[in-house]
Amino acid sequence: MSDQIKQATQEYATRLGDDSVVLGHRISEWVSYGPFLEEDIAYGNVALDYIGRARMFYTYAAELADDGRDEDDFAYMRNDREYRNLLLMELPKGDFAYSQVRQLFADVYYTLMLPELLQSKDETLSAIAAKAIKETKYHLRRSRDWVLRLGDGTDESHQRAQKAVDQLWGYTHELFDMDETEQLLADAGIGVDVAGLRDRWLEMISAILTEATLTVPEDSWAVRGGRIGYHTENLGHMLTEMQIVHRSHPGCKW
Amino acid sequence: MSDQIKQATQEYATRLGDDSVVLGHRISEWVSYGPFLEEDIAYGNVALDYIGRARMFYTYAAELADDGRDEDDFAYMRNDREYRNLLLMELPKGDFAYSQVRQLFADVYYTLMLPELLQSKDETLSAIAAKAIKETKYHLRRSRDWVLRLGDGTDESHQRAQKAVDQLWGYTHELFDMDETEQLLADAGIGVDVAGLRDRWLEMISAILTEATLTVPEDSWAVRGGRIGYHTENLGHMLTEMQIVHRSHPGCKW
Repeated sequence: MSDQIKQATQEYATRLGDDSVVLGHRISEWVSYGPFLEEDIAYGNVALDYIGRARMFYTYAAELADDGRDEDDFAYMRNDREYRNLLLMELPKGDFAYSQVRQLFADVYYTLMLPELLQSKDETLSAIAAKAIKETKYHLRRSRDWVLRLGDGTDESHQRAQKAVDQLWGYTHELFDMDETEQLLADAGIGVDVAGLRDRWLEMISAILTEATLTVPEDSWAVRGGRIGYHTENLGHMLTEMQIVHRSHPGCKW
Repeated sequence: MSDQIKQATQEYATRLGDDSVVLGHRISEWVSYGPFLEEDIAYGNVALDYIGRARMFYTYAAELADDGRDEDDFAYMRNDREYRNLLLMELPKGDFAYSQVRQLFADVYYTLMLPELLQSKDETLSAIAAKAIKETKYHLRRSRDWVLRLGDGTDESHQRAQKAVDQLWGYTHELFDMDETEQLLADAGIGVDVAGLRDRWLEMISAILTEATLTVPEDSWAVRGGRIGYHTENLGHMLTEMQIVHRSHPGCKW
């Protein structure tokens, strides 16, 4: 592996780890607030799936960095400006509809992105994708069902679901952005060319939203910046909670 | 100063510092949320008064401890179980009425307690009291005015103020508790015998609440524990926010 590819792969693994840990943490915030017990347990499971992915991505990033850091250093010892996650993942949990719509957007994204990552020439990334694909099938079944149920439910649930779709829409464009690092890896057969996934994502999402009697928004605005460390104010607050135990006991091991 | 008195005084200064920094932080949470600009600026001023007191108390505690710690270590490097503040101070800011009623309870308490501390044989504690007395006069004028205005205001403001009084009442008993440490210091003419202040506090508070057309609650419940480190869940969350910057940059100096 050339130095350039190695460095890009480390950055890429960090980005994917950041997406996973941030969304995982947001999902975990629902634990104990679920509308019924089974749903509540599902939150815990899905959150753990994402946190598990983050661990694998970070461990790989740490291996490539080879500078003494481990997965915990990646998760707990970087501040918000050093995080590289997509903004969609860091937005607060909002109400139930908001979280489920966000989840649907993410699940369809991973449904398309992970099979591509499975084809990666990088065996570690491919292996992580193989595990994550199975989880994502289950995730999508849940978020799709919920969005259908909420969209095609009561007036109130429909209204909230539509509001969530409208509020989140502008954060979905960033999911399909490519920069030099990702282009390099896509060209090398290591990373995914996410720009090419946008049409299928839009098709799948439109079908689900339409079935849920929800309106697909127009592309009138877009917010980006997560991949270069420009975040909403929400991430800093989230990391504060997420990192305080580790930072209070530096170097502590179980 | 005997070792026993020295140790007790260190503990006492820490307790008073904890009360000050915790209440100061809660007040600071109102900054930018005030009902109008002057009130907003007042929050900042009052919060700084309390944080200034905390610095003086902690600096003295650190001096007595003489173990290399400084004021920042006291504020930022102790967890919730190590904090010794009164529970009243750590309760969340709630609505505007809730914060103003809490402030009134605290301000009347300090109006009675600080002149006693001024008489302390310990010159440092006496000097801190001298400065704090002036601030408290201004604080009480504000919180008293607000409670009168809210209690004797609209139906909604009256209701909210009464609810705040009822919800906070059970936390006021702890303000007048004495344990061995405080008794030792009171007997030595260093600390304040707060148990002796309860009747006058009740008299002053009753007069203000009555003037505000609010009902003085019955003493039907009481919660205690702050002085031995048994806190409500609120303190941990508060310290997380308060300590994250310091804990993220250990040993960092301006």
